[in-house]
Amino acid sequence: MPVGLPLVQRDHLLAIAGCELGFAQAGIRKPGRKDVLIMRLAQGSAVAGVFTQNAFCAAPVQLCRQHLAKGDGIRALVVNTGCANAGTGRSGLQDAQQTCEAVAQQLGVSPTQVLPFSTGVILERLPMDRLLPGVRAGAAALGTADWLDAAEAIMTTDTQPKAASRVVHLTRGTVTLTGISKGAGMIRPNMATMLGYLATDASVPQAMLATLVRHAADESFNAITIDGDTSTNDSFIGIATGSGPVSFSAEDAHSADWAAFQAAFIELAQALAQAIVRDGEGATKFITISVEGARDRDEARQVAYAVGHSPLVKTAFFASDPNLGRILAAIGYSGLPDLDVSGVSVWIGSTLVAQAGGRAVSYTESLGQMEMAKADIPVRIALGRGSAKATIWTCDLSHDYVSINADYRS
Amino acid sequence: MPVGLPLVQRDHLLAIAGCELGFAQAGIRKPGRKDVLIMRLAQGSAVAGVFTQNAFCAAPVQLCRQHLAKGDGIRALVVNTGCANAGTGRSGLQDAQQTCEAVAQQLGVSPTQVLPFSTGVILERLPMDRLLPGVRAGAAALGTADWLDAAEAIMTTDTQPKAASRVVHLTRGTVTLTGISKGAGMIRPNMATMLGYLATDASVPQAMLATLVRHAADESFNAITIDGDTSTNDSFIGIATGSGPVSFSAEDAHSADWAAFQAAFIELAQALAQAIVRDGEGATKFITISVEGARDRDEARQVAYAVGHSPLVKTAFFASDPNLGRILAAIGYSGLPDLDVSGVSVWIGSTLVAQAGGRAVSYTESLGQMEMAKADIPVRIALGRGSAKATIWTCDLSHDYVSINADYRS
Repeated sequence: MPVGLPLVQRDHLLAIAGCELGFAQAGIRKPGRKDVLIMRLAQGSAVAGVFTQNAFCAAPVQLCRQHLAKGDGIRALVVNTGCANAGTGRSGLQDAQQTCEAVAQQLGVSPTQVLPFSTGVILERLPMDRLLPGVRAGAAALGTADWLDAAEAIMTTDTQPKAASRVVHLTRGTVTLTGISKGAGMIRPNMATMLGYLATDASVPQAMLATLVRHAADESFNAITIDGDTSTNDSFIGIATGSGPVSFSAEDAHSADWAAFQAAFIELAQALAQAIVRDGEGATKFITISVEGARDRDEARQVAYAVGHSPLVKTAFFASDPNLGRILAAIGYSGLPDLDVSGVSVWIGSTLVAQAGGRAVSYTESLGQMEMAKADIPVRIALGRGSAKATIWTCDLSHDYVSINADYRS
Repeated sequence: MPVGLPLVQRDHLLAIAGCELGFAQAGIRKPGRKDVLIMRLAQGSAVAGVFTQNAFCAAPVQLCRQHLAKGDGIRALVVNTGCANAGTGRSGLQDAQQTCEAVAQQLGVSPTQVLPFSTGVILERLPMDRLLPGVRAGAAALGTADWLDAAEAIMTTDTQPKAASRVVHLTRGTVTLTGISKGAGMIRPNMATMLGYLATDASVPQAMLATLVRHAADESFNAITIDGDTSTNDSFIGIATGSGPVSFSAEDAHSADWAAFQAAFIELAQALAQAIVRDGEGATKFITISVEGARDRDEARQVAYAVGHSPLVKTAFFASDPNLGRILAAIGYSGLPDLDVSGVSVWIGSTLVAQAGGRAVSYTESLGQMEMAKADIPVRIALGRGSAKATIWTCDLSHDYVSINADYRS
């Protein structure tokens, strides 16, 4: 059961002009489920992406980077679940290439105008005998699917599809944004990978979109953690089809309209990212960790991640046990140079827990218990050594996490 | 049930001349268990230690550092379980100081000649009303306890006492070494802390002992991980009483005798450290991760720890599931600059799993299953970019880990 994640309503998801969707049931890993998604983009669409930093990045990630760098104009995306095509060496690259070629042939574009994505088991080859017919079927079905279908088609062990839309009314007209995401861990176990796609009908210059996508990823998908593992396939893609009424140019970079659009884009990316945490493997708590008073943003994040990754902190949240010394211990080993613990304060919800390197005088176990019993728990850490801050989102570590990851392939 | 950790036999543990032991049942946290240990050392004993790098280090750790730096000659150690005296600010320091004073008064030494150690719940004050009588009782009982009592007196949620002895026959005589350790995680949940004490009857100059203790810690207690959390109280102490027949001087640094003594000291430290992993929280597997072909030792360790800390790798071991792509993914995100994955090979036991960045041609699922079914599993990773190597030891992540850490205080 995801934490505070309402089921997506099909009619809440808005079509994006210039972006057609089609899916297929190719039986890649299991029969009878949507496992191939094709997106066709209008000519002139701008597309930008950020990808996993994992050195063992998957073959499709390598091709995505090449095709985006080539700059022929991306016209289609193809996503398969069930197999990550990672750790597959040269053959894996050929399989990904062949997938792009199949899409290109079907749509009358060049293979370098296609971006491929895979998510699923690592170290196994793509079943091309099933994937290629699926790709053709998905392409033939373009225009028949909506964004809920798309969100479902990229699910692996997610318990719910993740999708949302936003409408922004600007002085120059209305922009529509719709995004989907998947992945209930930074890496899904075998079913590795976080994937996120955010499409808008606005026209956005390539360079501005690339900057926005990097920035939005940093504030959303790069600020969540389930278990600290980084997938071989993580990808976040921004698409601006330019088929709607609103158009931005480089001159708009400091305009109020661009600021409002940016804010909506980032907020939607955060909602899609947080949905992944709320549906985290075995999650029973949604935890927001905010660190302030840091010397710079990097060290604020370093502390936030040390706390967010600590299995001891995470099991305490699972138990609703205000065993809050564990948070101090994680701050202490986060590796900040010359950390003066006497300047550190910690709050859970609105309760001050620690101050001046020790337990706050006002803190009581029952106050801590009251805060820990909630499903959405904010943790605030003040380092008292600067003015930089950062926020990340994570979940607890439960029995179900172990079950899901231990039993997945059996 | 610890993994391959036979019960310690009382008569296998050898007394160390110049080191007297006494314990008490002070009821610090629970009544009726040994929870205070006093060690009295012969005059002239050399003592050296390494301590947690955690910025929130406990009050006793701060005092240990001060007292060792002062160089008055350490004459006694006092250890309590049940309360870590960490995150306790200035009052905690006063409590630790008072503990040292109580020992000093009882034994007729100076408080700065006493090293204090605490392990247990963080963020709580020591119950001095129970601890001080316990300290006096332990001191009064000096000489009545043996090393098995000592190992039991420092246990918290360890399921077995951890202790071992070694005898080394050198050209210049016989050296006896006995050590004890505790802690079933790098940090025990509330019951935080890894503690290790290794005593020998040899006479060793202070500077040589300090170097040896740092080196041995690096090869043992610093090469184990349960959950990646670093305690506020971790300590490893080497003691050379000089009450036995063998004496080393600075001139012996390159002698065969010193080399043999060093080797025995390090091997014993490794056995004590590995015992902690074998009794790791919820451990069902003991995993040795060896990385070779690295540019330097630091990056070999970086890769080993990335694999050893990955919850996905650890749950796969728990499930005996050869889901070995997870190991590749962890190598990939370990953060090595310019890692060429085509040079990476991975073995489980004697089975080659991955080669040239992909699945080895000879690898089969059933070979993987056979290796993963064992209780002691060696993982070997060759990076193919240098000649440095490192080994760490860890355990799997099981349901019991979550239970122990979630339910501990309830």
